[in-house]
Amino acid sequence: MAYINSHYLKLKAGYLFPEIGRRVQAFSAAHPQAKIIRLGIGDVTEPLPPAVIAAMHQAVDDMARRETFRGYGPEQGYDFLRQAVAEHDFQARGCAIDAEEIFISDGGKCDTGNILDILAPGTRNRIAVTDPVYPVYVDTNVMAGHTGPANDRGEFAGLLYLPATAGNGSTPDLPPDGQADVIYLCSPNNPTGSTLDRVALTRWVNYAKANNSLILFDAAYEAYITEPDLPHSIYEIPGAADVAIEFRSFSKSAGFTGTRCSVTVVPKALRGLAEDGTEADLHRLWLRRQATKFNGVPYIVQRAAAAVYSPQGRQETHALISFYLGNAAIMRDRLTALGFKVFGGVNAPYLWVKTPGPGPGARSWDFFDTLLHDCHVVCTPGAGFGAAGEGYIRLSAFNSRESVLEAMTRLETRLHVW
Amino acid sequence: MAYINSHYLKLKAGYLFPEIGRRVQAFSAAHPQAKIIRLGIGDVTEPLPPAVIAAMHQAVDDMARRETFRGYGPEQGYDFLRQAVAEHDFQARGCAIDAEEIFISDGGKCDTGNILDILAPGTRNRIAVTDPVYPVYVDTNVMAGHTGPANDRGEFAGLLYLPATAGNGSTPDLPPDGQADVIYLCSPNNPTGSTLDRVALTRWVNYAKANNSLILFDAAYEAYITEPDLPHSIYEIPGAADVAIEFRSFSKSAGFTGTRCSVTVVPKALRGLAEDGTEADLHRLWLRRQATKFNGVPYIVQRAAAAVYSPQGRQETHALISFYLGNAAIMRDRLTALGFKVFGGVNAPYLWVKTPGPGPGARSWDFFDTLLHDCHVVCTPGAGFGAAGEGYIRLSAFNSRESVLEAMTRLETRLHVW
Repeated sequence: MAYINSHYLKLKAGYLFPEIGRRVQAFSAAHPQAKIIRLGIGDVTEPLPPAVIAAMHQAVDDMARRETFRGYGPEQGYDFLRQAVAEHDFQARGCAIDAEEIFISDGGKCDTGNILDILAPGTRNRIAVTDPVYPVYVDTNVMAGHTGPANDRGEFAGLLYLPATAGNGSTPDLPPDGQADVIYLCSPNNPTGSTLDRVALTRWVNYAKANNSLILFDAAYEAYITEPDLPHSIYEIPGAADVAIEFRSFSKSAGFTGTRCSVTVVPKALRGLAEDGTEADLHRLWLRRQATKFNGVPYIVQRAAAAVYSPQGRQETHALISFYLGNAAIMRDRLTALGFKVFGGVNAPYLWVKTPGPGPGARSWDFFDTLLHDCHVVCTPGAGFGAAGEGYIRLSAFNSRESVLEAMTRLETRLHVW
Repeated sequence: MAYINSHYLKLKAGYLFPEIGRRVQAFSAAHPQAKIIRLGIGDVTEPLPPAVIAAMHQAVDDMARRETFRGYGPEQGYDFLRQAVAEHDFQARGCAIDAEEIFISDGGKCDTGNILDILAPGTRNRIAVTDPVYPVYVDTNVMAGHTGPANDRGEFAGLLYLPATAGNGSTPDLPPDGQADVIYLCSPNNPTGSTLDRVALTRWVNYAKANNSLILFDAAYEAYITEPDLPHSIYEIPGAADVAIEFRSFSKSAGFTGTRCSVTVVPKALRGLAEDGTEADLHRLWLRRQATKFNGVPYIVQRAAAAVYSPQGRQETHALISFYLGNAAIMRDRLTALGFKVFGGVNAPYLWVKTPGPGPGARSWDFFDTLLHDCHVVCTPGAGFGAAGEGYIRLSAFNSRESVLEAMTRLETRLHVW
């Protein structure tokens, strides 16, 4: 008989966002008149920039004529896109990343999960994640059999949780030497909106070099960095190309959540250990993985992504990001004035907000329900991101200005939790 | 230190098609004047149908306006597409497959690989593949640690190889009861172009029911079936929804190799065994896998795929398939007249051709080199599909009429192998 992957049975009831969806749907069904404002899932709301739209129409026309039609593309992505990424996102920042080291893919979420394919099965590697954490990092490791079962707090045995809380300024402390083989870092952070500065990131790169660890660096929100001197890529830190894989995405920088395009950088210098103790080249392994289990991103989407780097595309995506950051600033100001303790929202589209407590209703899911029922506003409960997220909610700045203003007004006039 | 997945080191030097690419590139570099005709990799050459182009332009415009813009889509795919697939591909053929059981994905190759995520790790399941076989089925099982190392013939320990040769009419015999937990079937077959008829497919479904096996049925080429009464879907066989997952694709039916859209059907009735002996629902596991490790197919691509089912789209894709099948008929006739023994090419875009032998040059890779050097024609060596493929080549009908005619003329005038 066919046996299933029993590690899946360790997963908790549902991925965070489907659970939110269920609660919102139940509320909507009971209150069909309620005009719900969604500040929960981090999905963009504004249309694609005109430069991207023009490039897509052009690419669709390419597909309509035999001479310009494209079938299977190069496995790593088209040169025109990989070159643009290498130049603008890396070389322009002084990072010695070559187009050959860049893989075009269909999503940062997909690739942070898929990358585990090339790492040792079972519990051979000790995996470190921050707490709170983007749930996909944890769930994909559970699915891959890299953990034991979960305890009552939802923590999986075998994972190394690194608290990133108000206590340490949302900057996780280094684990003891030899403890972490694979380390997930996300900056600007989802969910807390905090960023790792050059000093903190250098500490991590040095730790990884000293311990031969692999850093999986998620830079999906780098376009939201507004403060100078913060690193946009881990490769701005000397030596990082020896220890880090970086994930980037067009989802939030150019509004591609429904268009699907991302970038994974696997430097050629990266090495891992095989079971027999020999060194193996991670770039070659990932290329083999992608050539076998992936068939590339649609040509029209790669053309769309390349348009992001044109002068017009850069201007338009910059305006898009400024718009969302404007929302974040409004929320930050009005929530602070209302008495909330607010983190993030300066270099990230997310605000990490302490629930009004202590007392009944201070738990994240309770406050989620309060906001939904009293204000018809959807947030993301911090506890969904890990035990250390309890007592917080995440608010997303991805929405229309009108909805953001209306949501703040509702909080100001309808919340009775103080 | 970070350990890698050492199972990757069992894989042979290269995936078949990259190796072909290397040989063709070397030949081209040495003979820059040679006008190479590629009948190797099965990549379409004709532009997308006008109905698809119109739908994509419209969808791009949807992405340009806030009111019609789409961010993250439903995890299984948009209803408009899943409903169309359920109706036209299944319900119209009497298969009781519901839209809820359909998952829209970015490629049949991807999903035949990714499906292993939900099956038991290690060698818990005995995996059966035909020989010759589409290499992705084997390589993804090797990567997942479902096999031992390869022997000199390139066969991996632990896999159950089912010969599908001229001797059994390319229809693999059933393995003994209890021997196969997971069975890959591909019909119309890549690479041999053969099809499983209703009787043969019923035998497999009954075997799977009797042995609680899981069939992974690859129907990527079903649109090429011309003979009546051949099943286009495994769900045309009674009871198949209890034992089979089916993979379909728009790549070859509508020219989507560079546009990327496919369909995976995981019926709700499917069950597998967990390690503790309890039954598990494969549909739920796959939904969890997709929700966590995938973010859907681009909205514009899903609109493009839905246009395939419009009256205009059906007419245009039918014409496209007839065109490629016309190529196949020409190749079949002229190769047969030339003295070749030819299989396939009637219900499939592939011809499976016996090399001229015995004698020197009869091995697949030798004849590949002969065709490349003497005729500047690229084929796929049968040995690349498994030990039983030795002594054959695969030719693809995906090309312009002009190139197909020219290739046949070159074989007629330049080959000196008889």
